[in-house]
Amino acid sequence: MRYIDEQTIEKIALGAAVLGTGGGGDPYIGKLMAKEAIRKYGPVKLISLDELEDDQLVVTVSGMGAPTVVIEKIPSEHEMTAPFETLEKVLGRKIDVVMPIEVGGINSLFPIIAAAKKGLPMLDADAMGRAFPEAQMVTFYLEGFDPSPVTMADDKGNTVVLYPQDGMWTERLSRALTIEMGGSSSVCEYSLFGKDVKTSVIPDTLSLVERIGEFLLDNQMKEHVRINKMLEELNGYRLFEGKIADIERRLSGGFTIGSAKLDGSRNEQGKTFTIYFQNEYLVAKEGEHLLCSTPDLIAVLDVETGFPITTERMKYGARVVVVAFPCHDKWRTLKGIETAGPRYFGYDFDYKPVEVLRKERR
Amino acid sequence: MRYIDEQTIEKIALGAAVLGTGGGGDPYIGKLMAKEAIRKYGPVKLISLDELEDDQLVVTVSGMGAPTVVIEKIPSEHEMTAPFETLEKVLGRKIDVVMPIEVGGINSLFPIIAAAKKGLPMLDADAMGRAFPEAQMVTFYLEGFDPSPVTMADDKGNTVVLYPQDGMWTERLSRALTIEMGGSSSVCEYSLFGKDVKTSVIPDTLSLVERIGEFLLDNQMKEHVRINKMLEELNGYRLFEGKIADIERRLSGGFTIGSAKLDGSRNEQGKTFTIYFQNEYLVAKEGEHLLCSTPDLIAVLDVETGFPITTERMKYGARVVVVAFPCHDKWRTLKGIETAGPRYFGYDFDYKPVEVLRKERR
Repeated sequence: MRYIDEQTIEKIALGAAVLGTGGGGDPYIGKLMAKEAIRKYGPVKLISLDELEDDQLVVTVSGMGAPTVVIEKIPSEHEMTAPFETLEKVLGRKIDVVMPIEVGGINSLFPIIAAAKKGLPMLDADAMGRAFPEAQMVTFYLEGFDPSPVTMADDKGNTVVLYPQDGMWTERLSRALTIEMGGSSSVCEYSLFGKDVKTSVIPDTLSLVERIGEFLLDNQMKEHVRINKMLEELNGYRLFEGKIADIERRLSGGFTIGSAKLDGSRNEQGKTFTIYFQNEYLVAKEGEHLLCSTPDLIAVLDVETGFPITTERMKYGARVVVVAFPCHDKWRTLKGIETAGPRYFGYDFDYKPVEVLRKERR
Repeated sequence: MRYIDEQTIEKIALGAAVLGTGGGGDPYIGKLMAKEAIRKYGPVKLISLDELEDDQLVVTVSGMGAPTVVIEKIPSEHEMTAPFETLEKVLGRKIDVVMPIEVGGINSLFPIIAAAKKGLPMLDADAMGRAFPEAQMVTFYLEGFDPSPVTMADDKGNTVVLYPQDGMWTERLSRALTIEMGGSSSVCEYSLFGKDVKTSVIPDTLSLVERIGEFLLDNQMKEHVRINKMLEELNGYRLFEGKIADIERRLSGGFTIGSAKLDGSRNEQGKTFTIYFQNEYLVAKEGEHLLCSTPDLIAVLDVETGFPITTERMKYGARVVVVAFPCHDKWRTLKGIETAGPRYFGYDFDYKPVEVLRKERR
């Protein structure tokens, strides 16, 4: 039997910030809230897909909004559980299992709060295998599942139930509401039975981020050994090392959007790099040369500690290592690339897997 | 027993455009839709407040959005009844009576469609005694009633249930959704029992607009006699007569906002007038001199026919008579003026009743 306790949360927070590709909300705030919930309600049981019954009702719980807002507007326990309770009322039945929609920053940790308070198990899986900025960028959408009813709440006591036509309308309507609600909200969506969840999620991702967190917290290892262990675990690559020379960040359409320019250091001395983001890191380039793009994962790590740096915590002058990992195969399908590939975000180039880009460079 | 038939609709459409102070949606479109519903489902029973039982459940049905959008995007019958059906599902019971939220343009006529389709009576009352642009500008709000659950639908098949904190949040959340839905939506709100409705609505307003419509359609009377009869009925005033010399109209925040400049004619030759609007006419001035302001009513009538001209149908060169009527006393309370007076709309002057302004001018 596996449980999520305060120590597990410490690891998940760190690992989820790596797989969260700089987004998915701020893991430090999520960590504090999840630990508080565990202290209050006790540890949360973590179950694998094998342990999930076909007729158990599973639902995702998450925070929506621009990370720059969430960092200043810490959600209350009520805000996190209100959409859950509203959903149970709407469905007229109890929910059996909670799962994260993404393993990103705060959103690996928020469902722990609902699970702890409700005494429910949490599923060791998510619907992205990373973090993405928009609501339809989930494997459930790729499989054609209906997100309805979608329930939402904010810190003012407003709650909403949406029955959108599809995942794109879920994104549009919930984003418009989130902006009006002050930039952040909490959401429950995709209430699905175990049998459908089993075929459509990305399994074992909470264990994975916990393991990554464990490497990063291992003081016995040097920073570069930790990073190497992590890259090994994720089949990842060290893209470059550098110093943040310039950073542009703005709040637009409910997202934190921007880019960072980096001056290469060590082997990359004299080279310049750019990272583009929309809540999450989306594209990494050396000059005009593509190094990695969404849906593959990009993470920015502190060179001293190997700890991940989120898009809203990137600061001028920080010395970082930028790494990349291949995304889950579900994102490398035509529908996956259409949904979360570079062209969807307005970049004028086709997706190429990070390992292919890597080979071409050699 | 009174019934709404095709003839009644013709009169209501015309009268409601007068009390709709140029807004509340386009009456011509609403008329066509309501007539079609009557032809399909039969006449709708009109009941007065006296006939309403204390334990009957009453709900308002309305269209939301900028009139300029509604004019181009005619709502379907489904769009009008979807929020009604969603509300019944949410409440877990049947609704007994339908009422208009406002006696403005399209919004006196939309509830007829729901009532006809559902075979329900319509209440001879509304919650404004006119039309207003924002959701919280209803007598229910002045009385402190909860609008929840608020149900919404659009032409794409999206439906939403809102539980806003109060009337102001109803406006903010439903407006944000309406904009995202393409600029128009249909809404059910304030499901109240008969006993609460009786103390909080403005009674007999459908009969009133029907009577006004009757005057305006009476070919036996000359145009100026018709207008005089109407002014008498509404304790109103002829403010001025003129030609529209300039018109500014823009879509902003989900509203049709703008102003019209008029050159006086006949007795007002040489004078210039301005009318400001936000979906509805809000302020009328001669030069810098205030003639009438919200919450009192302003209507713009075609000089040839006496027929009302809505804000979105005002055209350069049109010759018009501008008239004004005192609003219901509920709007002349402190809360009423705070909610719908000139300062709420950003005008830097205090509300004065139209009859006081009138006396001061003499």
